[in-house]
Amino acid sequence: DSAGGGGASAGQSSSSDSSADGLDITVADGIRTIRLNRPDKKNALTHAMYRGILNSLKEANDDANTRVIVITGTGDYFCSGNDLGNFANVTDPMKMAKDGRDLLMEYVDAYIYCKKPLVGILNGPAVGISVTVLGLFDAVFTTDKATFTSPFSALGQSPEGCASYTFPRIMGYAKASELLYFNQKITAAEAEKLGLVTQVIPHDRLEAEAWKRVRDIAQLPLKSLVYSKDLVRGRERELLHQVNVAECDRLQERWTSEDCMNAIMKFFSKKSKV
Amino acid sequence: DSAGGGGASAGQSSSSDSSADGLDITVADGIRTIRLNRPDKKNALTHAMYRGILNSLKEANDDANTRVIVITGTGDYFCSGNDLGNFANVTDPMKMAKDGRDLLMEYVDAYIYCKKPLVGILNGPAVGISVTVLGLFDAVFTTDKATFTSPFSALGQSPEGCASYTFPRIMGYAKASELLYFNQKITAAEAEKLGLVTQVIPHDRLEAEAWKRVRDIAQLPLKSLVYSKDLVRGRERELLHQVNVAECDRLQERWTSEDCMNAIMKFFSKKSKV
Amino acid sequence: DSAGGGGASAGQSSSSDSSADGLDITVADGIRTIRLNRPDKKNALTHAMYRGILNSLKEANDDANTRVIVITGTGDYFCSGNDLGNFANVTDPMKMAKDGRDLLMEYVDAYIYCKKPLVGILNGPAVGISVTVLGLFDAVFTTDKATFTSPFSALGQSPEGCASYTFPRIMGYAKASELLYFNQKITAAEAEKLGLVTQVIPHDRLEAEAWKRVRDIAQLPLKSLVYSKDLVRGRERELLHQVNVAECDRLQERWTSEDCMNAIMKFFSKKSKV
Repeated sequence: DSAGGGGASAGQSSSSDSSADGLDITVADGIRTIRLNRPDKKNALTHAMYRGILNSLKEANDDANTRVIVITGTGDYFCSGNDLGNFANVTDPMKMAKDGRDLLMEYVDAYIYCKKPLVGILNGPAVGISVTVLGLFDAVFTTDKATFTSPFSALGQSPEGCASYTFPRIMGYAKASELLYFNQKITAAEAEKLGLVTQVIPHDRLEAEAWKRVRDIAQLPLKSLVYSKDLVRGRERELLHQVNVAECDRLQERWTSEDCMNAIMKFFSKKSKV
Repeated sequence: DSAGGGGASAGQSSSSDSSADGLDITVADGIRTIRLNRPDKKNALTHAMYRGILNSLKEANDDANTRVIVITGTGDYFCSGNDLGNFANVTDPMKMAKDGRDLLMEYVDAYIYCKKPLVGILNGPAVGISVTVLGLFDAVFTTDKATFTSPFSALGQSPEGCASYTFPRIMGYAKASELLYFNQKITAAEAEKLGLVTQVIPHDRLEAEAWKRVRDIAQLPLKSLVYSKDLVRGRERELLHQVNVAECDRLQERWTSEDCMNAIMKFFSKKSKV
Repeated sequence: DSAGGGGASAGQSSSSDSSADGLDITVADGIRTIRLNRPDKKNALTHAMYRGILNSLKEANDDANTRVIVITGTGDYFCSGNDLGNFANVTDPMKMAKDGRDLLMEYVDAYIYCKKPLVGILNGPAVGISVTVLGLFDAVFTTDKATFTSPFSALGQSPEGCASYTFPRIMGYAKASELLYFNQKITAAEAEKLGLVTQVIPHDRLEAEAWKRVRDIAQLPLKSLVYSKDLVRGRERELLHQVNVAECDRLQERWTSEDCMNAIMKFFSKKSKV
């Protein structure tokens, strides 16, 4: 059923296919679709994928063919977060941390400065960075099979994606702490109750219903959408950028900390045993 | 059952009856009642009604007889929003847009700078400007028959009433977008879940229960109420005013845009066919 | 079952027992437990208790043995709020009000500047100041028997504990008003729905489940927790302090007002009749 694929349909594609990088990016019928396409790795984000997504988000701002942007995934997971392989085979940890900080900052800035409606269609569980940036989306439609977790402190790390700012504003401090400090996993229904996502849709109807909504959005007057988003988000952009810098600076320190090193080593040693 | 009418009871009225304008304004027993009274037009707001409401809100600040302010409506609708007749027979669109901007700004400022407890008793559906200003109320009691919708982008317009600021803070971005960008209608139960309204009351008990609450509020120490509201709202007033200016400036541009003109023309042509 | 007592277990206690003051403070296994221990007075806060809590919170910031702080209570109530006995036998009302203001400001500042995870385990109803400071906690686990009320305006007073800032951000204005202006009591389930508390736990499982969570938190990398909290709260601390000052200044005025005097006298005359 190709209709379910929405932006994945033929024609009008203005971006070259980048599936080699774990991404499928297409633009059709006003809809820019950024599809995480690395299902064998639960759509974990490699550096190339970060770069591909952020470039596409930037491109969308001035692309007349993009009226709405969708981020979605292929397979069972929406996104399992940062690929911990990004921490493997590191010869210069300080350089790794500095480069990681710079890339993450540019990645999250691309969400902060995104001018057009940004819609998530979550086909499965979301982890880490794919959870925290949700506070920068305009709408999130999620399967009832999704879960949400960002186990920062368990990994010796700390929040990113501006979640240290957006999550308490969305759901209050006593709830945000469960995700930001205490490594709790929540269900799609809980995420909806907290206001982190727009709507939970039964798994077998997600594609049809969410893409229907996206196609409707693509028909709305673009200027009204862009100006409305600017009224809601414009005033906060500079502050969000500062939050992003503070979060990334902290992660640069965390990534070379004993806490993080130990947690990552434990992860790889567990994995190698399996 | 006149008891249900609350502030509509006899005596102590300090304002002249203004029902000719589609408004009934009375002050009695410490309760200033602003009643939208144009049920044949679903209480759509004419320029005279905007003016009457904002004057009454301003007057309340220094009126010793006003301890609490109630806005409610007569008939099936609470308020169907801006009367699109305000856009009809316009000879000078630029002047219409400028005058509309000035009036809207003064209208919303009257809510921002309202010092006393402001209570909504919603007798039916709310649309547009009657939804967006709810973020500036202190309490909203609503019938279970109410719905809430503000179809800005469908009409080529953009949010007002400070909703671009208050709604994301009340309900989070992923939910606010449904009302502010994507023209979705929500039920009273959903509005309560989102924190936009205080309490949903079954339709046949709304009058009795909501007015009981209002009468109780009118008995509380006024200074404690005014000072408490000032602690909550005072710090944000200047920012809210800036939000109001930005929203109104944007609407002035929108009202003369092709997007909006087309949408309004479609509305009137549909109407003339019926 | 002493395990249920968590931090109350033997050994490693770095604070002298202060149960004479209505407080039990212990530090063990990384957990600093501040236990309100005045059950015959529903754990109402005396000046000595305010002082003991704020000193313990300050001490925790630099205490290597404290990884997480728990505030809980003994008996049926979590805390019935400010002991109205603090208003009794006052010979110099102006001095009473000034001293009360200074103490309250220092008390709330201790929460604002608390660097480590602060967890509430609410064993029963919470009133007044014990409700308002909840917006400064990182997690709140509550029995389903708890209720929440802060009857400020009924007592001629006004909000404190930074609730005039935190509550609208947590639950929206239309809900915050019920607690901050209109003296409404809410249930634990409602408090959870509003995001004021993290989780409601059936009464007979509260001790086991909440202390399990606390022990898990005490095992997490402390630096990640402290840095994460700093990202979430650090940016707001100066503003929260200003909110605290404004609230305390207002209460100083309120405590010597006729509104408050009358309400307190009514309270004591009712009590003397019983």
